[in-house]
Amino acid sequence: MNQLNVGILIFDGVEVLDFAGPYEVFSRTRTEPGVESRRSDASAPFNVFTVAQRPAPVTVTGGLRVLPDYDFGSAPPIDLMVIPGGFGTRALLENVGVLHWIAHTSAEARRTTSVCTGSLLLARAGLLANRRATTHWGALDLLGGIDPSVSVQSDCRVVDDGVVTSAGVAAGIDMALSVVESICGRAVADETAKYIEFPRQLPISKSQPPIG
Amino acid sequence: MNQLNVGILIFDGVEVLDFAGPYEVFSRTRTEPGVESRRSDASAPFNVFTVAQRPAPVTVTGGLRVLPDYDFGSAPPIDLMVIPGGFGTRALLENVGVLHWIAHTSAEARRTTSVCTGSLLLARAGLLANRRATTHWGALDLLGGIDPSVSVQSDCRVVDDGVVTSAGVAAGIDMALSVVESICGRAVADETAKYIEFPRQLPISKSQPPIG
Repeated sequence: MNQLNVGILIFDGVEVLDFAGPYEVFSRTRTEPGVESRRSDASAPFNVFTVAQRPAPVTVTGGLRVLPDYDFGSAPPIDLMVIPGGFGTRALLENVGVLHWIAHTSAEARRTTSVCTGSLLLARAGLLANRRATTHWGALDLLGGIDPSVSVQSDCRVVDDGVVTSAGVAAGIDMALSVVESICGRAVADETAKYIEFPRQLPISKSQPPIG
Repeated sequence: MNQLNVGILIFDGVEVLDFAGPYEVFSRTRTEPGVESRRSDASAPFNVFTVAQRPAPVTVTGGLRVLPDYDFGSAPPIDLMVIPGGFGTRALLENVGVLHWIAHTSAEARRTTSVCTGSLLLARAGLLANRRATTHWGALDLLGGIDPSVSVQSDCRVVDDGVVTSAGVAAGIDMALSVVESICGRAVADETAKYIEFPRQLPISKSQPPIG
């Protein structure tokens, strides 16, 4: 099948579950249900890889070291971009190379998404202007401070307003499942959630029906 | 503070969320609540690292490549051992070096835990004999087949019968939070779940009160 390329940005100080959650969801989604279908890529709708600014190993929050699949110069075209969060995002708010790559990749991609404080980078790159968006509960004010035109949603796990943002860390799993649902349908998303034994939070707000 | 060493086994074909979930929980737990306390290790009760049989990069399911912190020969003493699952466990069922390391490390550790099909390795190493235990829903029969003395629990996300096992993939996050609760108390576990925005599944059974 024609796979969509899912490019996940990684960087020093990225939060481990922020990128590993969507990595798990997109890489384990199968249009053919069950355990056996996960042994091959025959019914895998997504080709998932990591991208870093440079090819050197990335040190994740907590010390885990990950080898990126590609750097900015070598990455294949990205259909679905995932920007995770973590304390490492703060340094990247002043990194013109990263912000330019995010803006350029988003312009070419079918879907732009973020997890947790990854939305700070999207805002800084100008991608959330006049949109509803969310982030980790500890960074809601920071998001509004970066771009006051953002309508910050404090009550949603996932917000889809053209660009898809999510609340903190584990909410990235809900974000990824909601994107799977929008592309592959509800049954495939629910079956993937069942495979990874993740209790989907539906509706995807924290206490109200989702907006957008 | 005196930290407990959390050693997470990684291997080719380990499922990404199986090890990244507990890695996230243990590495981000703080006895001091809030966001700022996560910027340092001052109130971190756990020192988390990965261990592999050999020092070479490990290829996770989906293709992610991780550099282990230690190999079997160099790993520091482990207080809390985490054995994740994934299709890669099947090859390890015949790997005497890995099974011996698991049995030896468990004998020295305060706590032995597994996620998903990691329990197959614990069973093969003889650590689940005459105990209640669980695994991914697709491997329940396999677990009983490896050691018929195991009382396989099909209905629990986390089973603590001296050795702590969990259901598939995302249930490892519940497992880690339940271990944090047993060591640091309910408030610290709940605050960590809040920080990572993970909806704890309590009681930790799938449909009944937890056993053990």
